[in-house]
Amino acid sequence: MSEINTIFFDLDGTLYAMHLLHKEAMQRVGVFFEETYHISRELLSDCIEEEQQAIENRIGQRAPIHNRLIRFQQVFLKFGLPVFPGAGIMYRLYWDFILDNMRPEEGIASLLQALKSDGYHLIIATNMTAEMQYKKIEKLELGCFFEDLITSEEADKEKPDSGFFEYCLKKRKIKPENAIFIGDSLKNDVIGAQNVGIKGVYYHPGQLSEEPLFPVIRSYTEHEAIAALLRED
Amino acid sequence: MSEINTIFFDLDGTLYAMHLLHKEAMQRVGVFFEETYHISRELLSDCIEEEQQAIENRIGQRAPIHNRLIRFQQVFLKFGLPVFPGAGIMYRLYWDFILDNMRPEEGIASLLQALKSDGYHLIIATNMTAEMQYKKIEKLELGCFFEDLITSEEADKEKPDSGFFEYCLKKRKIKPENAIFIGDSLKNDVIGAQNVGIKGVYYHPGQLSEEPLFPVIRSYTEHEAIAALLRED
Repeated sequence: MSEINTIFFDLDGTLYAMHLLHKEAMQRVGVFFEETYHISRELLSDCIEEEQQAIENRIGQRAPIHNRLIRFQQVFLKFGLPVFPGAGIMYRLYWDFILDNMRPEEGIASLLQALKSDGYHLIIATNMTAEMQYKKIEKLELGCFFEDLITSEEADKEKPDSGFFEYCLKKRKIKPENAIFIGDSLKNDVIGAQNVGIKGVYYHPGQLSEEPLFPVIRSYTEHEAIAALLRED
Repeated sequence: MSEINTIFFDLDGTLYAMHLLHKEAMQRVGVFFEETYHISRELLSDCIEEEQQAIENRIGQRAPIHNRLIRFQQVFLKFGLPVFPGAGIMYRLYWDFILDNMRPEEGIASLLQALKSDGYHLIIATNMTAEMQYKKIEKLELGCFFEDLITSEEADKEKPDSGFFEYCLKKRKIKPENAIFIGDSLKNDVIGAQNVGIKGVYYHPGQLSEEPLFPVIRSYTEHEAIAALLRED
């Protein structure tokens, strides 16, 4: 029986609830854009989506595709607006709102404390750029529990690409059977990890519409159930 | 005769004097590290260099190799120190010092103003990540003169790679003979640009030890000499 000694956590959506925050932040960005440049937020939103797709088509699934500043700059160019200072204002509007309003998921701090006391190595493993992800962990006040932050910027591969997970294993000098990977995305986290032999665990605080195919954590307060997950082979 | 309508400017070392600032900022980082962790700044400096080389060997010459946060994190791991919050503190120590103390090169604002009035398209074209470069341009208060900021993060290629310059031309929909590229690095800026047929101009405020092989700007206050450079075919 192999022993799990390392727990990888995804960040966005896994350590804090991201979805509504993102929606509200984009709403504020949209209002600013509409009021300042008199272009509808619907047009803005379409343009952002197009630009994200364009950069992804050009450079592939890698960390810069998450950089909103690059995307916002492209939007300003497309609408014939000056890139300075508008793109920077929108970028800060978005991130300041997220950082000011993010809260750690219920029970996560005491769970991490308990896992750390039990000797597990805890690592953040996340898509996106290092600086923003580091800031988020600081704001959530969870930094003290984690030994490392591995981003797709550093790995140069994005989840669910196997290269990302292989980089994590190599960096931590461990075998897949010694790790579990907890995340809120079935595709990026759970199946991605499973594809390289790491046990993938689905963090899903809501109702599931069908019987889950993977181990599920519904709440970080269920310490006993989580301990059982770590013991199971 | 082809007409120049677009002027690309490198950023670090070209719009502000970077070298001494970098040295002083690293000195402060070194003192913090030595005082906090009781490891000499010489050991720190060796380790930073090794880690920079390691990430470059792994992912190639691309924007993340410039990200000091990734490098600092690796240093903390290597010395067995907690990545949180030390790596973030050092990262901010470095960049806050640079941002607080950077000053635009003498004459650059009035030169940019004059060039813009003359109808030239002015673009920043720089290695590194978009967020930090955007911040620098804001701090220098030069944003109003520039139409675009192109980083190696966006281009996914680093100067002097021809791919970087080709991306610049494609993005601006111009031919090489319609542009000049001004920068303080002979290799990255001047020769890199020249290799794709863009006229490379060397910004070098100090003494030159030998006859220059490329057009040189010694001071941004020499508007007449710069205007002559733009007229020459």
